Amino acid sequence: MFLARVYVTLKPTVNDPQGLTIRGGLHSLGFESVQGVRAGKYIEITLDAEDESEADVQVTEMCRKLLANPVIEDFRFELEET
Amino acid sequence: MFLARVYVTLKPTVNDPQGLTIRGGLHSLGFESVQGVRAGKYIEITLDAEDESEADVQVTEMCRKLLANPVIEDFRFELEET
Repeated sequence: MFLARVYVTLKPTVNDPQGLTIRGGLHSLGFESVQGVRAGKYIEITLDAEDESEADVQVTEMCRKLLANPVIEDFRFELEET
Repeated sequence: MFLARVYVTLKPTVNDPQGLTIRGGLHSLGFESVQGVRAGKYIEITLDAEDESEADVQVTEMCRKLLANPVIEDFRFELEET
């Protein structure tokens, strides 16, 4: 059994209205030191796999097919055997 | 300047309809090996701070006040000097 921690982020050139809104909220709360905010997704997946390389192949495929939009998003993940 | 990588996750006992929907989608796509999915938020914040301990205090406060809902969510973060 593996735990995959998947991070999906907008590509650096893509506008991020959610991040801008969070930044505005932090400024309103007095956190003037905040320069920039980028919002993304964090997904934890538990899956069965023979070994780490099989898990790696499967999670990469999941990201490509469902979890990330390759046009505007990047993804990366970590695997941990549980 | 510091980069804070903030992870906001639902507490383990809280229902996660988004995670269940993702799991259903992965199963439909043929990823039968997936056991469970939990969905969370990933936020990158760049901020000015004198040192790491000041940045730590500030980001903790941001999480408590805005980024996480302490009733149903947990948060953790990493700091990196940039």
